[in-house]
Amino acid sequence: MTIAAPTPARLDACCAPITGGVLDEVSAEALARTLKAIADPARLRLLSMIAAHEGAEACVCDLTEPLGLSQPTVSHHLRLLMEAGFLTRSTRGRWAYYRLVEGSLGRVAGLLAA
Amino acid sequence: MTIAAPTPARLDACCAPITGGVLDEVSAEALARTLKAIADPARLRLLSMIAAHEGAEACVCDLTEPLGLSQPTVSHHLRLLMEAGFLTRSTRGRWAYYRLVEGSLGRVAGLLAA
Repeated sequence: MTIAAPTPARLDACCAPITGGVLDEVSAEALARTLKAIADPARLRLLSMIAAHEGAEACVCDLTEPLGLSQPTVSHHLRLLMEAGFLTRSTRGRWAYYRLVEGSLGRVAGLLAA
Repeated sequence: MTIAAPTPARLDACCAPITGGVLDEVSAEALARTLKAIADPARLRLLSMIAAHEGAEACVCDLTEPLGLSQPTVSHHLRLLMEAGFLTRSTRGRWAYYRLVEGSLGRVAGLLAA
């Protein structure tokens, strides 16, 4: 089993809530990037499918068919979610498994409505 | 004083949280549209500026200069935020005033992390 190194946590770069005072440009850019990562129907469905799996982890082999998208397209979406800090990836045998980063969605929620 | 009619509330069309089970396509599309409306640094800063004003309401005349954007560009961003259900607009005299819809950001936050 290999676990990919944690990606640069954009969520951590992003510490100012919308309603806690006027956002500076850097904070606004960081939060906008994070929101863009989830502002996509396929990526939202992937997050919900992974969250609904046991242990909030799912094999990529379970994710492709229900979405009706090609495997490269699903992998692209999963990579964007990883880069934004919402998922981690590990491989076991021939398959990749994606796990929801605990608290990542809650962190964004907290920045929207502190 | 005139108050613009409420825009179709996309937020209301969007009732399924990410972590409450697998999102269907319609819910995912609706939530993605709502998130796209705020996944932009200028729009995030506008929301934070309006939220920081007294009564969570600001004149468009107060919003243009701090952002360093042209008035048509700011008006475009404000319109997208209205259409998504985050702002309402009223006019008093020659100016338009934008008010944060109470609970709108909290609603989205609740859908991200139920």
